[in-house]
Amino acid sequence: MAGGIFITFEGSEGCGKSSHIKALKDWFESKGFSCVVTREPGGTPLAEKIRGLLLERSSGEEMCSLAELFLFEAARAQHVEALIRPALAEGKVVISDRFYDSTTAYQGAARSLDADTVSLLNRIATSSLSPDLTIVLDLPASDGLARARDRDGSSADRMGSLNIEFYEAVRAAFLKLAADEPKRFRVISSAGAKEETFGRILDAVREKFGL
Amino acid sequence: MAGGIFITFEGSEGCGKSSHIKALKDWFESKGFSCVVTREPGGTPLAEKIRGLLLERSSGEEMCSLAELFLFEAARAQHVEALIRPALAEGKVVISDRFYDSTTAYQGAARSLDADTVSLLNRIATSSLSPDLTIVLDLPASDGLARARDRDGSSADRMGSLNIEFYEAVRAAFLKLAADEPKRFRVISSAGAKEETFGRILDAVREKFGL
Repeated sequence: MAGGIFITFEGSEGCGKSSHIKALKDWFESKGFSCVVTREPGGTPLAEKIRGLLLERSSGEEMCSLAELFLFEAARAQHVEALIRPALAEGKVVISDRFYDSTTAYQGAARSLDADTVSLLNRIATSSLSPDLTIVLDLPASDGLARARDRDGSSADRMGSLNIEFYEAVRAAFLKLAADEPKRFRVISSAGAKEETFGRILDAVREKFGL
Repeated sequence: MAGGIFITFEGSEGCGKSSHIKALKDWFESKGFSCVVTREPGGTPLAEKIRGLLLERSSGEEMCSLAELFLFEAARAQHVEALIRPALAEGKVVISDRFYDSTTAYQGAARSLDADTVSLLNRIATSSLSPDLTIVLDLPASDGLARARDRDGSSADRMGSLNIEFYEAVRAAFLKLAADEPKRFRVISSAGAKEETFGRILDAVREKFGL
């Protein structure tokens, strides 16, 4: 655990990551832990600038898949080096809203890039840092897209403007990642009441870290 | 040659790339060729935005070597996909002020990243596109730094603010690359008169492409 505890949340649009992350941070702090909440792409001033490039609908120029992947990895490399590793070294709890599994799942669903390339660049960018626990909040496409639309209104950005087939492909990709690494992942349905979902998240965290 | 002709210019700060590239473009056009001049990092609107991130002295946050490398490769992937390959497919002459050899040479001189990683990312970003001819304009550090200072004044940016040892390490790295791939590279001294240097560049181009 590199001294601290590193937890990532993954899932499709509208799965409710943000509010559960906030609640989990409060829970850790109530237990006396020092806790850093962060997100990808982003988490440092430079990485947030790169996020800006990734989110803006560029005027006239289509971003190619490889350039997009390299931008995600640039932001990630900075995020790991400047924020995550130092915080873990200080014994903190780091909770990130998305990490490299999102790149794997979204690129896997888009199928525009070779999976081995994505996996290789993920490893290089993180210098092989893996989360201790990754929670996938799982939701059927119809629910997730409706929630994402309620939240964002019509101002869907580059990464959010997805259709239902793509959403289901991303969802399937997360479930496959979880099946391939059962020790690191917990898949938790977020279809029910928020309190119920958070209860399951806490159970997973308590069990994993003996808290 | 992928239909067109792809020439890159490499060399340390102040080696005179810009004016020779302009003269070579004029020469090609006088022969009836359609010619695109471009540069790295940059060459497309998105890649120029990434160049902006690479050049700015960030406020407070040090850019880590890996993030810098990924940003270079993001700009390069977009440059190759959106500008260089389409122009070559149309049979044009593409002349680029720097390409992946700069990344290899500067990273090699800085020694902060593994050479195999740099070479691997270069290959991925270009999808293995190599220049047909790479001209290294070679200059001793003292001359090059003096010219770069005359040109830029005191406003040295992130990539230009180099000392003499680093300059010589970059120069040595370019000479080694040229020695390793003698078919692709021509090393031309730019220490003498500009006309003399340009004459040698033309000789190299005429010989390489039978013009």
